[in-house]
Amino acid sequence: MDASHGRRVRLGPGGEFDLIRTFGSAARLPEGVLVGPGDDCAVLDAGRLALTTDMAVEDVHFRRSWMSAGEVGWRAGAAALSDLAAVGAEPLAVLVSLAVSPEDALSGWAGRLMAGLHGVVGEAGAAIVGGDLTRSPGPVIVDVTAIGRVEAPLLRDGARPGDEVWVTGSLGGAGGALVLLRAGSPLPEPLRRAFARPVPRWREARWLRRAAEVHAAIDLSDGLAGDAGHLAAASAVAVELDPRALPLAPGLEAAAPSAEEGVRLALHAGEDYELCVVAPPGALEPLAEAFRDRFGVALTRVGRIREGKGVWALEGEGPPRPLGGGFSHFDAPSVRPPADPGEGT
Amino acid sequence: MDASHGRRVRLGPGGEFDLIRTFGSAARLPEGVLVGPGDDCAVLDAGRLALTTDMAVEDVHFRRSWMSAGEVGWRAGAAALSDLAAVGAEPLAVLVSLAVSPEDALSGWAGRLMAGLHGVVGEAGAAIVGGDLTRSPGPVIVDVTAIGRVEAPLLRDGARPGDEVWVTGSLGGAGGALVLLRAGSPLPEPLRRAFARPVPRWREARWLRRAAEVHAAIDLSDGLAGDAGHLAAASAVAVELDPRALPLAPGLEAAAPSAEEGVRLALHAGEDYELCVVAPPGALEPLAEAFRDRFGVALTRVGRIREGKGVWALEGEGPPRPLGGGFSHFDAPSVRPPADPGEGT
Repeated sequence: MDASHGRRVRLGPGGEFDLIRTFGSAARLPEGVLVGPGDDCAVLDAGRLALTTDMAVEDVHFRRSWMSAGEVGWRAGAAALSDLAAVGAEPLAVLVSLAVSPEDALSGWAGRLMAGLHGVVGEAGAAIVGGDLTRSPGPVIVDVTAIGRVEAPLLRDGARPGDEVWVTGSLGGAGGALVLLRAGSPLPEPLRRAFARPVPRWREARWLRRAAEVHAAIDLSDGLAGDAGHLAAASAVAVELDPRALPLAPGLEAAAPSAEEGVRLALHAGEDYELCVVAPPGALEPLAEAFRDRFGVALTRVGRIREGKGVWALEGEGPPRPLGGGFSHFDAPSVRPPADPGEGT
Repeated sequence: MDASHGRRVRLGPGGEFDLIRTFGSAARLPEGVLVGPGDDCAVLDAGRLALTTDMAVEDVHFRRSWMSAGEVGWRAGAAALSDLAAVGAEPLAVLVSLAVSPEDALSGWAGRLMAGLHGVVGEAGAAIVGGDLTRSPGPVIVDVTAIGRVEAPLLRDGARPGDEVWVTGSLGGAGGALVLLRAGSPLPEPLRRAFARPVPRWREARWLRRAAEVHAAIDLSDGLAGDAGHLAAASAVAVELDPRALPLAPGLEAAAPSAEEGVRLALHAGEDYELCVVAPPGALEPLAEAFRDRFGVALTRVGRIREGKGVWALEGEGPPRPLGGGFSHFDAPSVRPPADPGEGT
């Protein structure tokens, strides 16, 4: 088999297979993909690999009235690809499991979802190499497994006291969009893009990795406070965040009239899919301008690591205040409450 | 990092993480798993890999009243591991996405599902290396991605006219169990095991591969007729099956009073998770006895490959009869009809 020409397998006849064919419509398969969609497994030959999976469930992670089918697919793919970014991996391949109603399968809705997923996977230079299509008795479910190449993975457990905490891009945009969507209010375009078409920061992560010493990283899916808590626990350190330093998302004022409310969304709302990066003092400062020039995205110092545990907010001259965690599906208050009972299935 | 001692990452506090911890409770991580559960990604270093994903949805693939939580987990894992068997891969790692209600998360039901999944993954010598836990507004959904090592994958597209078609084990057991479960009839133990605790045939596949020339393989998830159809399409050949040669599952007579009905289940019922293997004439015959001695499982010749397309049943002295496909989620009749509308969510 020639690694530069991945194989596709012919599928049998049947309506189901027309939709399954959309799983494998990438123009070409990346080098390292030996067997693409259509057989029992995809086959990769790529050395050291990072793998992650991320499931999106209708009426838990999204509502159909809030996004197009293509945006549902884009966002589901972005969530998984963002985890690759967090460990400094280069996206290679994606597997997708999709559960939809027969109506969604046959009306083209599911095909448009797959087109959006192909969009974000293609943007990342990867390809969909396999999946599973099944009937759902209720909600649409899309589960994305993303596979990337990584030489030395950048983990959560390397933060050390004295290190600085940085974030890419801006925060609170997806959370602000959710506030407005739930209220039925119009959505400023920057918030809409942040919510519906987040761009995973894998190029940014790899560039930072090459340009500087980086000790730890995590992507922001549960909210900065919550994800910093995961990083603190993994590294056995405390994270101190400076609320005044947080880069608030453009357009956030439409969802958060007060500065306090904006900061609350930036700290606690999930799904920004930016990166939180921990590096030695002074390591990233000289790179911030070049980073912005290259990627059109800010790189902002938002806190520091100290001995201890948990996540703390700096409060002027007073003692730091403990910060609660981020989103949890099964407990804890959140900016993302359960879907209205009347709207579920 | 030491490849022989995979890393685990400490998780933050919270009720959700207690259940997430069950994702990573394997006693040890297999060699080749550099980073296990707890970070943004798992990391593998294992050369050439086969990857597959398989989703099980409550009231589509299983009903809670038919199986224990542990059996739901076992079966979901077996379905994905069986795809690894079909390409001759050795299981290495599994990712799992699980959507459950808060009640199932907190009552222990989801934990028992994970225990069953650990059971089949452990039986295969692999480990759960990551996953995603989310709330479901309705049905339980478990999506399993399985990753295995493979040197030269055994694909569906290598069958040639003149080759023989063989199957492992016996057929129709899972379909027979389904007939009885739907009727509310008692289930003979062999059918119950076939349905609730299928054992993926990856050891058998790798042994056959080493012992003989094998041209193509597929695992039986959609029913022999349907899966033979996929293989025929991929190889651009026709498959002729001999209904009288099919190894019917022990206990099948309880579900299929007539021989015709037993053959129908063996041909068209899905989820037996046996292997269908295509080899040159005479290649497997000398191995059948050693195969049975070693694995306690039959190896039976059930047909042959000829030029043409589609799947055909040999009918005594008459011309072969075209066979329809197997299970489809969105069209075509099946032994696995949609769940009763009143029983869904």
